[in-house]
Amino acid sequence: MVVDMEKTKKGPRDVGLPPGTLVHVGEKKTEKTKISIIDYDESQVQEAEAKSAEECFPFKDKNTTTWINIFGLHEIDVIEKIGRHFELHPLVLEDILNTRQRPKIEDFEDYIFMVLKMLYFDEEEYEIMAEQVSIILGPNFVLSFQEKEGDVFNAVRERIRNGKGRIRKRGPDYLAYALLDAVVDHYFIILENLGGEIEGLEEDLLGEPSTETMQDIHELKREMIHFRRSVWPLREIVNRFERSESPLIKDSTTPFLRDVYDHTIQAIDTIETYRDMLSGMLDLYLSSVSNRMNEVMKVLTIIATIFIPLTFIAGIYGMNFAYMPELGMRWGYPAVLTVMVLIGVTMAFYFKRKRWL
Amino acid sequence: MVVDMEKTKKGPRDVGLPPGTLVHVGEKKTEKTKISIIDYDESQVQEAEAKSAEECFPFKDKNTTTWINIFGLHEIDVIEKIGRHFELHPLVLEDILNTRQRPKIEDFEDYIFMVLKMLYFDEEEYEIMAEQVSIILGPNFVLSFQEKEGDVFNAVRERIRNGKGRIRKRGPDYLAYALLDAVVDHYFIILENLGGEIEGLEEDLLGEPSTETMQDIHELKREMIHFRRSVWPLREIVNRFERSESPLIKDSTTPFLRDVYDHTIQAIDTIETYRDMLSGMLDLYLSSVSNRMNEVMKVLTIIATIFIPLTFIAGIYGMNFAYMPELGMRWGYPAVLTVMVLIGVTMAFYFKRKRWL
Amino acid sequence: MVVDMEKTKKGPRDVGLPPGTLVHVGEKKTEKTKISIIDYDESQVQEAEAKSAEECFPFKDKNTTTWINIFGLHEIDVIEKIGRHFELHPLVLEDILNTRQRPKIEDFEDYIFMVLKMLYFDEEEYEIMAEQVSIILGPNFVLSFQEKEGDVFNAVRERIRNGKGRIRKRGPDYLAYALLDAVVDHYFIILENLGGEIEGLEEDLLGEPSTETMQDIHELKREMIHFRRSVWPLREIVNRFERSESPLIKDSTTPFLRDVYDHTIQAIDTIETYRDMLSGMLDLYLSSVSNRMNEVMKVLTIIATIFIPLTFIAGIYGMNFAYMPELGMRWGYPAVLTVMVLIGVTMAFYFKRKRWL
Amino acid sequence: MVVDMEKTKKGPRDVGLPPGTLVHVGEKKTEKTKISIIDYDESQVQEAEAKSAEECFPFKDKNTTTWINIFGLHEIDVIEKIGRHFELHPLVLEDILNTRQRPKIEDFEDYIFMVLKMLYFDEEEYEIMAEQVSIILGPNFVLSFQEKEGDVFNAVRERIRNGKGRIRKRGPDYLAYALLDAVVDHYFIILENLGGEIEGLEEDLLGEPSTETMQDIHELKREMIHFRRSVWPLREIVNRFERSESPLIKDSTTPFLRDVYDHTIQAIDTIETYRDMLSGMLDLYLSSVSNRMNEVMKVLTIIATIFIPLTFIAGIYGMNFAYMPELGMRWGYPAVLTVMVLIGVTMAFYFKRKRWL
Amino acid sequence: MVVDMEKTKKGPRDVGLPPGTLVHVGEKKTEKTKISIIDYDESQVQEAEAKSAEECFPFKDKNTTTWINIFGLHEIDVIEKIGRHFELHPLVLEDILNTRQRPKIEDFEDYIFMVLKMLYFDEEEYEIMAEQVSIILGPNFVLSFQEKEGDVFNAVRERIRNGKGRIRKRGPDYLAYALLDAVVDHYFIILENLGGEIEGLEEDLLGEPSTETMQDIHELKREMIHFRRSVWPLREIVNRFERSESPLIKDSTTPFLRDVYDHTIQAIDTIETYRDMLSGMLDLYLSSVSNRMNEVMKVLTIIATIFIPLTFIAGIYGMNFAYMPELGMRWGYPAVLTVMVLIGVTMAFYFKRKRWL
Repeated sequence: MVVDMEKTKKGPRDVGLPPGTLVHVGEKKTEKTKISIIDYDESQVQEAEAKSAEECFPFKDKNTTTWINIFGLHEIDVIEKIGRHFELHPLVLEDILNTRQRPKIEDFEDYIFMVLKMLYFDEEEYEIMAEQVSIILGPNFVLSFQEKEGDVFNAVRERIRNGKGRIRKRGPDYLAYALLDAVVDHYFIILENLGGEIEGLEEDLLGEPSTETMQDIHELKREMIHFRRSVWPLREIVNRFERSESPLIKDSTTPFLRDVYDHTIQAIDTIETYRDMLSGMLDLYLSSVSNRMNEVMKVLTIIATIFIPLTFIAGIYGMNFAYMPELGMRWGYPAVLTVMVLIGVTMAFYFKRKRWL
Repeated sequence: MVVDMEKTKKGPRDVGLPPGTLVHVGEKKTEKTKISIIDYDESQVQEAEAKSAEECFPFKDKNTTTWINIFGLHEIDVIEKIGRHFELHPLVLEDILNTRQRPKIEDFEDYIFMVLKMLYFDEEEYEIMAEQVSIILGPNFVLSFQEKEGDVFNAVRERIRNGKGRIRKRGPDYLAYALLDAVVDHYFIILENLGGEIEGLEEDLLGEPSTETMQDIHELKREMIHFRRSVWPLREIVNRFERSESPLIKDSTTPFLRDVYDHTIQAIDTIETYRDMLSGMLDLYLSSVSNRMNEVMKVLTIIATIFIPLTFIAGIYGMNFAYMPELGMRWGYPAVLTVMVLIGVTMAFYFKRKRWL
Repeated sequence: MVVDMEKTKKGPRDVGLPPGTLVHVGEKKTEKTKISIIDYDESQVQEAEAKSAEECFPFKDKNTTTWINIFGLHEIDVIEKIGRHFELHPLVLEDILNTRQRPKIEDFEDYIFMVLKMLYFDEEEYEIMAEQVSIILGPNFVLSFQEKEGDVFNAVRERIRNGKGRIRKRGPDYLAYALLDAVVDHYFIILENLGGEIEGLEEDLLGEPSTETMQDIHELKREMIHFRRSVWPLREIVNRFERSESPLIKDSTTPFLRDVYDHTIQAIDTIETYRDMLSGMLDLYLSSVSNRMNEVMKVLTIIATIFIPLTFIAGIYGMNFAYMPELGMRWGYPAVLTVMVLIGVTMAFYFKRKRWL
Repeated sequence: MVVDMEKTKKGPRDVGLPPGTLVHVGEKKTEKTKISIIDYDESQVQEAEAKSAEECFPFKDKNTTTWINIFGLHEIDVIEKIGRHFELHPLVLEDILNTRQRPKIEDFEDYIFMVLKMLYFDEEEYEIMAEQVSIILGPNFVLSFQEKEGDVFNAVRERIRNGKGRIRKRGPDYLAYALLDAVVDHYFIILENLGGEIEGLEEDLLGEPSTETMQDIHELKREMIHFRRSVWPLREIVNRFERSESPLIKDSTTPFLRDVYDHTIQAIDTIETYRDMLSGMLDLYLSSVSNRMNEVMKVLTIIATIFIPLTFIAGIYGMNFAYMPELGMRWGYPAVLTVMVLIGVTMAFYFKRKRWL
Repeated sequence: MVVDMEKTKKGPRDVGLPPGTLVHVGEKKTEKTKISIIDYDESQVQEAEAKSAEECFPFKDKNTTTWINIFGLHEIDVIEKIGRHFELHPLVLEDILNTRQRPKIEDFEDYIFMVLKMLYFDEEEYEIMAEQVSIILGPNFVLSFQEKEGDVFNAVRERIRNGKGRIRKRGPDYLAYALLDAVVDHYFIILENLGGEIEGLEEDLLGEPSTETMQDIHELKREMIHFRRSVWPLREIVNRFERSESPLIKDSTTPFLRDVYDHTIQAIDTIETYRDMLSGMLDLYLSSVSNRMNEVMKVLTIIATIFIPLTFIAGIYGMNFAYMPELGMRWGYPAVLTVMVLIGVTMAFYFKRKRWL
């Protein structure tokens, strides 16, 4: 089950607190908040791990592109300091800390704020885990907030280090795109896993479906509901990001955003296809249950219909009346046996004709 | 059940009365109409309980922000006096008094009028209660009308008193936002309760679902229908409130309205997810009923199919024909018993192969 | 059943006739066409019953507001005369006479034409009856066409006579609004009736649902389909009426139109809620049928499974073999009885464990 | 079944042919292509049957209104000659000849091209037949192409001859409207037929539904799917025709187009209502099948549950043990009979209480 | 099954690679990349098979229309060279190589890029195969990329060679249209095949539906889901192509694009109709299963209900009580037989009246 579902359980903030109050809502997923800084332009890369929030401050107005990645959200004062220095709106900070946020994008002239859901597959627990990722795109920096250290952004980090691709030649808007792209790309891994499960279920269905098959279909449907809920808002987000007239986004980045938009649509498309397929499988399951019941009924009916009348005949000649002329006849017993066989054969023919046999 | 459903039972006003006629439609939920006044600006707060409608009048044109909260709607003359003094449209007064209103917003240049549904969970009766809240945002006052005293707005009141947060520094539009926010926040408590019930039902379903499980699913679905009906219109309301070009709403309040809009979307999203989940549970329940029926049928069929033919054989040798050679044979009885055992074992094998056992 | 359904049975006009040909399509619901005239301004009211169409003519250009109400549509020449004098488009006259019209609004610069469906509940026949009402709003007159005399507009008439409310102070646009409002208000009476029936059915469902319950649900669903069909177009009508830029509608009337729009939305909302509830009830009914079948099956299976094996044992010792050693044993009979009791008790335990008992 | 369905079977043109290639796709429904010409203005009417395509040519630039009706589409050269003279786009000609076209409208500045589906009811075969009608509205002519001679346009022809209505006073746009109106009017005859069938099925359902009832519902649903498919696009067509800013359509014709638009909406509305009703009937049918199964089960269960235990008791006293004291007792037989009656009565009471009897 | 479904299994590119990295994603469907060049204007045609990517380069700026068709996508360096020379965006190349792309269109001022899905029916494997086709429309060239050599574009090639139709007289936009048209036309062949299968299933359903029928319906539904997914985006593509204000598309080509748009709509329409029909068939199948179960139950009930009581009576007179006066009576046996016959006949009448026989 998507662990993120817990977000439905509690309000966006503890009810009664004034809006903008910073409270970390969600599980504490890491020990200590860790701040990693990557500063680069076309010619050089500098990496550092900040020991305090203050170490990030100089990068705000530096001309190079800086990516500040914060892992862990429970040290509120660190987040607050960064927020104050980078002049973020209090509600943005509240949204970053509240990990039950719905994915969204907001354009605050000076910066663009995005909340995304990173999903990954926990192989051991066999469930989809959700992690909230907040991205802030400023004029020459990108802030990203994650609940814990993950490996999804590692590939982006590698590309910056190696100078592979065009990432080093372009500014922070391209970096923000690269992060968004990494998140969306990861959805396809989940989709692949779910697709595999659906295919397995389909084979079960055509073979010997059991009650567990039904429960698996049900669980997959529920996972799709939650998955869909994390992905659908992305369509709107990427679309608004692409169409934004913010000076923060250069024209040359637009084709890339269009590309990630296409991938989002493709993910949504696949989710909807899976939902349709699961609905079809439910119908198939129910009809297969009906069919088996039908078959059970037929066996019962055939046996009962053949033997009940025969038993009745045997019952008649088991009666103890003093005057039952047939009982004394020499050919009585074989005659009755013959009649019984005839009745049985007739019945069998009847069922044959009805295609029950 | 949502008590508010009664609103479906009677028209918006007693049929035949001219529009704008003030009639209190709904239950009388409090003894006496109570008017509480909170007047504040950045430096001071003043609280008072008005003994008559007239006591509110001076606050209309006072420069400070004034929040006039009216509890109880059955003393029509009080409402009318306030309405006349604050120059409200007769239809606004009618809507305030008619507690079967659909949530809505209307912009009357001089003031903005909102009708909301406050929902709370009655722990004792275990049902969702609906109360209508009307909010009027004027140039330097906010009027709020409630059916009875409640504790939902207490937190807002507390924040004004303590000067915590930014509420005291901002004007009546921020106050109106705070009230709206309090109402929306409260929905998440209901959602949490419903989410708990759904989870409980899901466990029942995977265990031993009974007829009550089905009825509980049905009732939850019905509650979702009513809940949804109260929340859906909010989306439109908050959206129009945010996008309103009324001079009554300052630009600095817009991000907060966007925030409450996001929460509304999240609530709606959760409701829709619950509806999807409940539909899935219904399918699961029905298939589980089918499965159990199938199992019952199998037991019956196995027993009947094994024993009916055996009983028939016993019946044959219970017949009283004078000439039945088998009856006199020494090994007749053990032979028949052996045949019976063989038939029984064959049948059992057959059922084993059919996976009925 | 909504009698109006007959409108689906015949074309908008007798096929082949040129458009604009005046033919009364529908039942003849009254004996004679009756024309009642109410002419009023703020200071006075004049009522008259016109003996001929010509009597209405002077009111066309009179400065006061005049409401001409025509009951009965089968005297085509009367309608035609009025139509010609008030310069109505031939298609408007055709639509007035054709009582199988879909509700609609049309703005012909000089006047606005509306077709509505008045629904009322026939207590005796226990069915919803539909009557077509056409309203024409001119510069200083309102023409209304009804199929027969009804009491829905009586309240409006009363208000004009008594000068209660603001109706006398305002012009024909307010009068048209008042008529529209009266029609919409009446829908809530139907909704109340239907709501009552739904509640009754719900109680039946939780008690002992029978085949009639199912048929009642089905009939209510069908009534909802027809009801909905009459009400849905109203949304569009009232909306276009409100947003119309026609000089015939004064600005001061707009809030009232917005109010009747809200009521229409509320009626539609309630209809949709009822439809959702009825769908839920259908599911509940079907699952209740399944459950009862399940229970019947269990009883059958328990009885059959316990007694069929026992009867088989009795059958064995009813066989007439000459050499059956058990038969001669002293304790044979009680031993068999004991075995039988043991088997029965074992079976009962088995069913207990399976929760069939 | 709607014969038109065959259009789904083959592509819009023989695959591989260059677009604009003239091939008649569809059944050959008439022997010879027939061209009838009606030329009229307010004062006179002239009718002629053209022997060759060339006879139509002079009418292209004549000031009077000319209606050229072509029956039969398989003589491609005739169509082509007309097309070349009236300067039609090659794709228009291709669409006219391809009778598997979807209804559509296209505005080619010099003329407006419409494809419609004429449906009529074949009383003998009891099925809906579809015929494609193409209409071209030029500055002073209307071309109409039909697959075969039909009587749907006869009424229009009659009106032109008699000068009845306003058709003679108006130009070709009114004529095009009149043809469109004739097609739409004809749909209501089909609707009436289908409505009658639905009502019949409903009565069957409340009486004794059989497997045929189910198949009839299914077939009606399928007919609705095809019917709907022919009518839905009309909504768009008439709407675009009405809103077209083409100089070919005079302002005075607009109200008539609005009228035919209303009729189209009404037809669509009725189709949707029928679909809803048929879905409801399907549910009713399935629940009625369930109910009957339930009743069958009850009868079986009652009989089996009463007699199986009694038969068991009889079986016990049919055993041949040497020492069965009850057998020798004087009152043994009546006692057992009494016990049997008691058991039977108890069972009956039990079923009575369970409401199975 | 649509093989293309595999696209759901893997992300749009290998996760972690920088966007624009050229990797061939998909099956390798041909041995060697083959480049065929057709260069033509109204007066001449030249055909050539390029041995290297460089041979295509001169055609970029040649005034005549050139169609460069590339078969096989796995030789990445060939694609890359062409891409660089024709100045294609790196993401375009990535999309061409990634055969799991969703159909789409993109307008890069200098050229228009389209991705389509070519579907064809594999007669041997009896499944729908999907092949990705990318088309690039430049100022005087068209590039098309196919996974392998196919015959769908042969007809277009033929038309260019023969100078049949208008293709030679028009520029590259018409050529791009012709390719698009060929792809859409091919869908109708698939639709025809599917339509045939649906009709076959329908006949099965009205005859003797088996479990295979159900599985076939299910599989067809799944194929429709995938088919639909390939065709739906085309609607948007063709629409945007038609409405594009790119100077690459001449006005004279617009009617042709409108034509292919109509065909796309018709294909979608047919798919939706098939989906509706398959849903209806599912309902019919389930109800037919219910009906057969009902019939089986009736047979069982009739037999059991008639013979169980009779067997009980026989059982009574099979008891061995010493004092059973009936046993000694002369007419006891015939009397009992008569009673049995009477009971049987009564039962039969009862079932007759209940219409079970």
